[in-house]
Amino acid sequence: MAPRRLDCVWPVPSDIHIAQSVDAQPITSIAEAAGILYSELNPHGSTRAKVRLSILKRLESSPNGKYVVVAGMSPTPLGEGKSTTTIGLAQALGAHLHRPCFACIRQPSQGPTFGIKGGAAGGGYSQVIPMEDFNLHGTGDIHAITAANNLLAAALDTRIFHERTQDDVALYRRLTAGLKDFAPSMLTRLKRLGIDKVEPKELTAEERVRFARLDVDPATISWRRVTDVNDRVLREIEVGLGRAERGVRRRTGFDISVASEVMAILALVDDLADMRRRLGAIQVARSRTGASVTAEDVGCAGAMTVLMKDTVEPTLMQTLEGTPVLVHAGPFGNIAHGNSSVIADRIGLKLAGVDGFVLTEAGFGADMGCEKFFNIKCRASGLKPDAAVLVATVRALKFHGGVEPKDAGRENTAALREGMRNLIRHVQNIRKFGVPVVVAVNQFITDTEAELALVKELAMEEGGAADVVVTSHWAKGGAGAVDLAQALIQVTESTPSNFQLLYPDAASLKEKIETVSRDIYGAGGVQYLNNTEEKLADFERMGYGGFPVCMAKTQYSFSHNPNLRGAPSGFTVPIRDVRINCGAGFVFPLLGDVATMPGLPTRPAYYNIDIDCETGKVLGLS
Amino acid sequence: MAPRRLDCVWPVPSDIHIAQSVDAQPITSIAEAAGILYSELNPHGSTRAKVRLSILKRLESSPNGKYVVVAGMSPTPLGEGKSTTTIGLAQALGAHLHRPCFACIRQPSQGPTFGIKGGAAGGGYSQVIPMEDFNLHGTGDIHAITAANNLLAAALDTRIFHERTQDDVALYRRLTAGLKDFAPSMLTRLKRLGIDKVEPKELTAEERVRFARLDVDPATISWRRVTDVNDRVLREIEVGLGRAERGVRRRTGFDISVASEVMAILALVDDLADMRRRLGAIQVARSRTGASVTAEDVGCAGAMTVLMKDTVEPTLMQTLEGTPVLVHAGPFGNIAHGNSSVIADRIGLKLAGVDGFVLTEAGFGADMGCEKFFNIKCRASGLKPDAAVLVATVRALKFHGGVEPKDAGRENTAALREGMRNLIRHVQNIRKFGVPVVVAVNQFITDTEAELALVKELAMEEGGAADVVVTSHWAKGGAGAVDLAQALIQVTESTPSNFQLLYPDAASLKEKIETVSRDIYGAGGVQYLNNTEEKLADFERMGYGGFPVCMAKTQYSFSHNPNLRGAPSGFTVPIRDVRINCGAGFVFPLLGDVATMPGLPTRPAYYNIDIDCETGKVLGLS
Repeated sequence: MAPRRLDCVWPVPSDIHIAQSVDAQPITSIAEAAGILYSELNPHGSTRAKVRLSILKRLESSPNGKYVVVAGMSPTPLGEGKSTTTIGLAQALGAHLHRPCFACIRQPSQGPTFGIKGGAAGGGYSQVIPMEDFNLHGTGDIHAITAANNLLAAALDTRIFHERTQDDVALYRRLTAGLKDFAPSMLTRLKRLGIDKVEPKELTAEERVRFARLDVDPATISWRRVTDVNDRVLREIEVGLGRAERGVRRRTGFDISVASEVMAILALVDDLADMRRRLGAIQVARSRTGASVTAEDVGCAGAMTVLMKDTVEPTLMQTLEGTPVLVHAGPFGNIAHGNSSVIADRIGLKLAGVDGFVLTEAGFGADMGCEKFFNIKCRASGLKPDAAVLVATVRALKFHGGVEPKDAGRENTAALREGMRNLIRHVQNIRKFGVPVVVAVNQFITDTEAELALVKELAMEEGGAADVVVTSHWAKGGAGAVDLAQALIQVTESTPSNFQLLYPDAASLKEKIETVSRDIYGAGGVQYLNNTEEKLADFERMGYGGFPVCMAKTQYSFSHNPNLRGAPSGFTVPIRDVRINCGAGFVFPLLGDVATMPGLPTRPAYYNIDIDCETGKVLGLS
Repeated sequence: MAPRRLDCVWPVPSDIHIAQSVDAQPITSIAEAAGILYSELNPHGSTRAKVRLSILKRLESSPNGKYVVVAGMSPTPLGEGKSTTTIGLAQALGAHLHRPCFACIRQPSQGPTFGIKGGAAGGGYSQVIPMEDFNLHGTGDIHAITAANNLLAAALDTRIFHERTQDDVALYRRLTAGLKDFAPSMLTRLKRLGIDKVEPKELTAEERVRFARLDVDPATISWRRVTDVNDRVLREIEVGLGRAERGVRRRTGFDISVASEVMAILALVDDLADMRRRLGAIQVARSRTGASVTAEDVGCAGAMTVLMKDTVEPTLMQTLEGTPVLVHAGPFGNIAHGNSSVIADRIGLKLAGVDGFVLTEAGFGADMGCEKFFNIKCRASGLKPDAAVLVATVRALKFHGGVEPKDAGRENTAALREGMRNLIRHVQNIRKFGVPVVVAVNQFITDTEAELALVKELAMEEGGAADVVVTSHWAKGGAGAVDLAQALIQVTESTPSNFQLLYPDAASLKEKIETVSRDIYGAGGVQYLNNTEEKLADFERMGYGGFPVCMAKTQYSFSHNPNLRGAPSGFTVPIRDVRINCGAGFVFPLLGDVATMPGLPTRPAYYNIDIDCETGKVLGLS
């Protein structure tokens, strides 16, 4: 590692002030200290580099480090500091305790960066730098996802247009014009259709029609467009209203880019070949006879992979104290699985080795990102987590106990005791997966000794946490999280993980939905609306019954109602819709009114963001 | 320069085969040979680097090189090879004649790359490498443009929503919550409103309403969303159909990203401060009282500049023969101005010095990109071009003489003579700007001696070309364009340019439209449809009468009708719509049925594109 001493001042300056006051080390130095060869780097400027996947081959026989997931209590408007804790803990392990340590975090979405939340580089003296590069375009992965997702959408709608405006002969002629042999994607479709021919001229008239007509039923189109902007008016739109479209109009909408199935795939793939296969398997619609229509059928899965080829490499960056950070995949554990990538975690684990740690972040509350980390991501990767760090604040716990934000800075042990039910359930939930939990209490200046003691007592005694540690990394950098780091080392050395999935592949899709609803959310039951039961049965008939479920739910409550704080029980979860993500390999139930496209508040973060045109420095980003 | 010998084989292999058979030199070597300091580079991988604008300060007092615009005859389905000629000529000047030479070309749009046209890296033995990086995401500039454009669109629609759903007091309170002083963008708006106060609490009730309510008239919204995909169903859409939008629905649409005003601005700016000012000046709509509503009013011009901050730096790449290429801004001379950037040209001119050349590419036929190069780009920059290279092929000339593509390979001097009217008018048009023209005839194997001789004779005698040269750079690389390079050197040394604009700033907007229509297109008259005359008068009342005009017209004909080949005359140009681009600084008339969003054909280029998952190599990109 290449530690750097921080001179922390009080009061703590703005995030961007701190970030810009530290010169990032050359990324080549960070890489060298981390054990990454120069030939394994693909630099983007001097402070970022993508890491080539050849490193996994080189380190194939190296032992893994400890695998730790960082999760949160149910989030509140006050902010709990999960990313900040991940970075602070990495600084403590790496720069202070000299353990190899990699923070595996997600590229932020521009939606929240310019919306309510601001950036996601951490905060105070626990940040990823340069924070502007991290928070803006990164190394372009989300833009590539947007491009690939929307190429598929345009390809599908245009294909429907061409099928509707051309007769069988013209359609086949144009699809195959000038081709001696079929294109590879065409051969894949022919194989699925049971047509074993390689030259366009060989097909019978009947085969030509079957090949050329995807015959999409517009009502079944599940593929939506995406944009990395919080653009609420695009949630529901009607397209194809131009005169030239000749009536090929329909209702659809945009999601935020990070909720794209393409992002989910990026986070779960083993390598480029796995990505190519999964992108081809994406189901975009059904034909009028009920057959699956895939990206491969539409002919653009190869081009999508080409657009995505550089995204499979995670991006190496650094913390303020020079510890390595791997940035990969994207956030939104509510409407996506919201986890960093399998590839980044694997690279980190190999580089960390037996004495080292990988801290991987799971989005939003542990009922969302962390449940999906276990049931979707670990199921896909086969990796077994050694421990979980659960981040909480006294203020947020009081909010869950009924206190309003403006009063959260006043001691209130009664409300705190009530709000602790939220934290306790999260700890208990993670323990259901056989994973020991260390609770990190991210300290605020208003926290009292009595409150901190109460959190510790209840989390240990009622939740069964392996340890509870108060941290001050926001104000002190890694030095403020050394106690937490030592507790984590102690727990991973003394408390073996007995990791197990919450449900087997073989359970029915309904059983999977009900297991998560009951065992994680505390629901009393599940209600299937809008033909969702039939849809689930249909998914099983199509052969997708073995998929896990990726629940889309508000992050603010264990329930589907964002206003139910604390640890509500006995509610009935409404399943409003279910979608199938055949490429990512999960079923996607939508619970309640969760929106797959956020909105902007009346005064969004962009009001404060500007540039110093003399120096080129970014102002006001947080 | 760092020349590299090419071993050209015959028949010429596929573009991607040639491109992948040559290892690109380290971009640091290309930069060093070109006179760019290491500290002036911002590397993206090993073969691309953005060039910092500080270089312009360092070279402030250096003399400029010769400034040459590369333009084309009216394009045909056969392809004329304008980019290929730009690159081949750069290879000839740089690697063969050892003149400092910079090709300033545009980042391709993903729309055409995956649509009909394929990539834009040149072809054969005259290409920019690595062609995959060039043709895919580049260094992210177009993605940044999409992000900035769409942030503004979302900000505007969301502001309308919030104004419609909140009363005056709540709206003002939320806009200013927690602010001691107004944000900088708010101060700009207050100044425009004549309110000289810095603290939110100081405003009177009446001032608060004036400040907080943009009061947008939805019917006047001219800002559209963009995507870098050929997505025809997005040309006309209705947004805001979700229940939560409470009726804030309206008709709008998407353009291709490169047609965004943000792209036009990038190509014309002097520096970051100029970009900040221009982005703020973008007019997105009018208020119900007729006031201009700008990006500054919406509060996101600073954030847009932050998203765009890296795009002001052009990207250095290389040709197959190691000559430097500056990639900047975007294509589509039909529905945008479609020129490479002022900044890239300036950097190239300073680095080239007295013996050197900058070849800058103007999109589509010379009636589109090149007219805009002169009247918009040179007007903005003050740079004076020394010569123009006009690219033609015998096949395309025969097409303009009425021959169908399938017959274009057969000798036909009668059709050629007829089609030469197209080329002759382009040569005469460029000479109206006082710029000498060298015609480059991009040779095909089917061209006959008689045909080539006829082109030469007519172009010189009837068009007044300074020279006409047959080139074979597609098959032979720079060696095939040495004659062209020598002719260009000769012309720039012997024939002084007397560059002049076609119309003065002071002409009325109608005069400008009519001058271009008459003097460049050959029109007999102009017809103003859909209230466009009133709109133009309104633009002049608003103070925008001094702007040049950026005509949106089909590229396939001098007229607005793509089917009128050759050199049609006497037609009446219909002005269907006029838009105002206050940030880019031009008025944008739409002529005839030109679409600002292309479509996809029945079998788009993406059918052939795939990846070799073992090697990571891209397949089938052209």
